[in-house]
Amino acid sequence: MSDQTQKVAIGLDIGGTALKAGLVTSDGVVITTSSLETQATAGVEHVLQRIIGLIQELAAQAQGDGRSVEAVGVGVPGTLSRSCGMVIAPPNLPGWRNVPIVKRLSEATGFRITLDNDANNAALGEFRCGAGRGVKNLVMLTLGTGIGGGMIFNGRLWRGAYENAGEIGHTIIYVGGRTCGCGQQGCLEAYASATATVARAAERIESGEASTLRELLERGDALTTKRIVEHAAAGDILAQEVWEETCRYLAVGCINIQHIVNAERIVLAGGMSAAGEALRRPVVEAIERLGSRMLGDPPEIRIAELGNDAGFIGSGLSVFEPV
Amino acid sequence: MSDQTQKVAIGLDIGGTALKAGLVTSDGVVITTSSLETQATAGVEHVLQRIIGLIQELAAQAQGDGRSVEAVGVGVPGTLSRSCGMVIAPPNLPGWRNVPIVKRLSEATGFRITLDNDANNAALGEFRCGAGRGVKNLVMLTLGTGIGGGMIFNGRLWRGAYENAGEIGHTIIYVGGRTCGCGQQGCLEAYASATATVARAAERIESGEASTLRELLERGDALTTKRIVEHAAAGDILAQEVWEETCRYLAVGCINIQHIVNAERIVLAGGMSAAGEALRRPVVEAIERLGSRMLGDPPEIRIAELGNDAGFIGSGLSVFEPV
Repeated sequence: MSDQTQKVAIGLDIGGTALKAGLVTSDGVVITTSSLETQATAGVEHVLQRIIGLIQELAAQAQGDGRSVEAVGVGVPGTLSRSCGMVIAPPNLPGWRNVPIVKRLSEATGFRITLDNDANNAALGEFRCGAGRGVKNLVMLTLGTGIGGGMIFNGRLWRGAYENAGEIGHTIIYVGGRTCGCGQQGCLEAYASATATVARAAERIESGEASTLRELLERGDALTTKRIVEHAAAGDILAQEVWEETCRYLAVGCINIQHIVNAERIVLAGGMSAAGEALRRPVVEAIERLGSRMLGDPPEIRIAELGNDAGFIGSGLSVFEPV
Repeated sequence: MSDQTQKVAIGLDIGGTALKAGLVTSDGVVITTSSLETQATAGVEHVLQRIIGLIQELAAQAQGDGRSVEAVGVGVPGTLSRSCGMVIAPPNLPGWRNVPIVKRLSEATGFRITLDNDANNAALGEFRCGAGRGVKNLVMLTLGTGIGGGMIFNGRLWRGAYENAGEIGHTIIYVGGRTCGCGQQGCLEAYASATATVARAAERIESGEASTLRELLERGDALTTKRIVEHAAAGDILAQEVWEETCRYLAVGCINIQHIVNAERIVLAGGMSAAGEALRRPVVEAIERLGSRMLGDPPEIRIAELGNDAGFIGSGLSVFEPV
């Protein structure tokens, strides 16, 4: 290989629905992308073969372009062990318990494999190439079915002593409050995730309150945060109140993050961040209203910029990180 | 100076009531200590002269023992700027606004001066020489009139992007709850500090509930957490319930810390930590009861070991830290 050969990483984001991948340079430039349905219900071996196929496809493409693949970065949801290279118990991948994914993928492809949490990789992606550019410290909140997070301190991912840091969705904002899927009571996720937001709206509609969202439910359409935001913008009071409440809870999450870790920027990512300014503005206003002067310099709140690509871009970038 | 001259630091802990100081080696060994009343009400200049006197006294003692003073480490309460060497607004030092303490002390004594928050210095002291030995990551909670904190990640103090990290007392555990001195509603400090614990007990006694603590109040004696713990141990139900509640709130604080930063150990320090096992055990039990399996490896909870000396020992040690 000549010195001119450009080194690239294969970045992979393994989700319950889709496998997303791309060739990524050390600067985060995406050369090419490819994706497949996960077909998670077909079992671990089936999904592993699809992942291996995706890696081989991108490796062939890299070779065809005269690029050298440095390694493959993999992001998976849920608990894992980086030191053992194991996926332990991802919530959206049925049957995946204690899968030695690093060993399996390196044996099948011959590449070095790095493994991390998908939220950590997405935070790294936004940090280097998206809404995190220009700062050294940031916290990213992934707002979707659940609420996850990734944290960068002094330019490096902070994973915690037991690789469990950034589980901001499971901080308790209401002692003795709503029961969360994790078993705790009063978690931020039980109030402000997309699931919780939809549930709070549905509860009020079912109890008889007036709302233009009722028609949706009666038609059998799914209630989503996207629709709640749309109906709020169109003047529906119930939708406005539910969304305002969600933003207030998220502001409390941001205040708590800031009092503990004191970041420069908090990036709002995940499905709910598609609301853009309709999310960012009320969160910023609620932080100003609810936070104390002790916050000093409040964190800047930004909407993520890379959308669903943050995961595989960050997975690719993670290959080039110092160990 | 010969190479045999042992280098020591002068460590200083500036509090609202007392100025505590000592000669401290780079290993945290305390050679000698000295302290003075702060006499804070006599004003900034008066207190500065007392501090300078204390430094000169310890410097003379070091010289007499053939030791060389490397620098003076100073810990102060409340907001400050390390980069400007300024004390900005300490809550317990009336009149101290924007005092250029580093410049003043270095001009008066000729020594290099390092400045930090007292909670950070105390965390450093416990980390190197007390309840933090043996781990690389810890969070220290200072439980007293308020609730402060200091955090060590990978063996280094984490001060945050704006030097405001670790304000764990002002994380919100009850959206819309009790008003805190900081102006927010529902802060951990408004529920679980010594002040809040005493207030919760007093409210219940004043509302007519039976308690052996009533006699104390009627005699005009001050209600303290020490007395609440004593009466709880002697079987008073109200005291038991109030203390149990405090420990439950502190457990929520620990759960939140753990979900965000994922430390190996949480050290309980400050006046309330004098309760020892009567504090530690119910906090550990409440974490087990209230925390989810997602906590993975829960943090080990320990009582601080250096008591009121953690501050000046850590101030001394801070002198030897890499910048």
